[in-house]
Amino acid sequence: MLSRNESRIGLDPGEDLEDLQRCGLKIIQARDTFRFGIDSVLLAHFAPLRKGDRVLDLGTGNGVLPLLLAGIGEPGAIHGLEIQPRLVDMAQRSVALNGLEDLITIMEGDLCFPPPQLMAGGYDLVISNPPYLPAGGKVNSREELAIARHEILCTLTDVLRTGAQMLRNRGRMALIHRPGRLIDLLTTMRAEGLEPKTLRFVHPTPRRKPTMVMVVGVKGARPHVDVLPPLAIYQEGGGYSKEVLSFYQG
Amino acid sequence: MLSRNESRIGLDPGEDLEDLQRCGLKIIQARDTFRFGIDSVLLAHFAPLRKGDRVLDLGTGNGVLPLLLAGIGEPGAIHGLEIQPRLVDMAQRSVALNGLEDLITIMEGDLCFPPPQLMAGGYDLVISNPPYLPAGGKVNSREELAIARHEILCTLTDVLRTGAQMLRNRGRMALIHRPGRLIDLLTTMRAEGLEPKTLRFVHPTPRRKPTMVMVVGVKGARPHVDVLPPLAIYQEGGGYSKEVLSFYQG
Repeated sequence: MLSRNESRIGLDPGEDLEDLQRCGLKIIQARDTFRFGIDSVLLAHFAPLRKGDRVLDLGTGNGVLPLLLAGIGEPGAIHGLEIQPRLVDMAQRSVALNGLEDLITIMEGDLCFPPPQLMAGGYDLVISNPPYLPAGGKVNSREELAIARHEILCTLTDVLRTGAQMLRNRGRMALIHRPGRLIDLLTTMRAEGLEPKTLRFVHPTPRRKPTMVMVVGVKGARPHVDVLPPLAIYQEGGGYSKEVLSFYQG
Repeated sequence: MLSRNESRIGLDPGEDLEDLQRCGLKIIQARDTFRFGIDSVLLAHFAPLRKGDRVLDLGTGNGVLPLLLAGIGEPGAIHGLEIQPRLVDMAQRSVALNGLEDLITIMEGDLCFPPPQLMAGGYDLVISNPPYLPAGGKVNSREELAIARHEILCTLTDVLRTGAQMLRNRGRMALIHRPGRLIDLLTTMRAEGLEPKTLRFVHPTPRRKPTMVMVVGVKGARPHVDVLPPLAIYQEGGGYSKEVLSFYQG
């Protein structure tokens, strides 16, 4: 049964309401477009969020990262930028559904040409779960999914350049990406003035190769990176690891 | 009791003969200068050595890496370059002691200004266990140890630049370093034309932060790095891991 808020905001055909398993938060997902995955959950818990932070999410999709950060910490304000109008609409309805309009603002716009509402140097923390895959080669035939997964409308360099531009000096940028792109990620971060300071690899199980990597860069910081212990999603014997389980029991 | 070879070559006062635990190989070590550690053993087993390879070790110390590679694979020739005369002498005596003079040549020289015997573009594999620590700050008062551990006579960039110069196109360079220097290592490799292709972190135990990182760069290769499963030195319950034990039972 829908609560008062849910019925007022309403779901479009093909949409579901999913429990974020964090402070009772819910999110609108659609079956035929971008749906958040465990990478968003991992990044939200990895991002070094401090109380009162002004946060910007570049390519926010259906707004999963702003919602999760609202449930995890005490940010001062969260702005989410998304280029796809349908996802912007879903994200805005999810924000309203959770009564978080005072904290979270979702804006439609291109991160390569940030809209004037985004103030350069005005953020403490920028996060992004960018497209992982190159633009060339085989892409998903559904345009919305292709844009979320492939570097069609923005490249990794675009994301990092805009992130650096939006951060205050010593501000933090947190990303998740595929390990295969690690060298591109780290060299571009340094080139854009976001010195990588914390790195963590995500492994399906402790003994397997990593399938994701998370990094925090600090604008204007000195070189030296802290590589954290591996994060395993599953235990060797099966089932989620204790650490990942803790992300779902907040 | 010393064998015929050992007595002919002789040990200086303060020197020991250590078993490399690989094909009966032995190495001369001295109590008051550079002694090889587990990092050399790990790097020797990580380095992508192929049959017939011409190999160069930059900063060979007492020759531990050439000796280990001779015991592990079937290189065609190994050259070791070392700037410290006493270590050159120890390494040369160890090579003779093992009867490997036809395979291994130890040369005295500065890797920043490679001697003419080293032919640019003439190697398939370059390895190095370079000084890990910066030149500034607290350094060991024993000059020989300080030179092996700190970037006093050569920097990481010097090692990578000379490595790239000595490799044939598509030749491989394998190094071990501290994780804190990872960004310097990877960005400099790419800048010197040695694209990082394989990366492996070494952890004391599976759940702890890495204390070492090993990397293979390929001269002129395209970007994309394969991050291998973590290498744990010890098992969670104590004792060497199976993988490290296998390095000592060749």
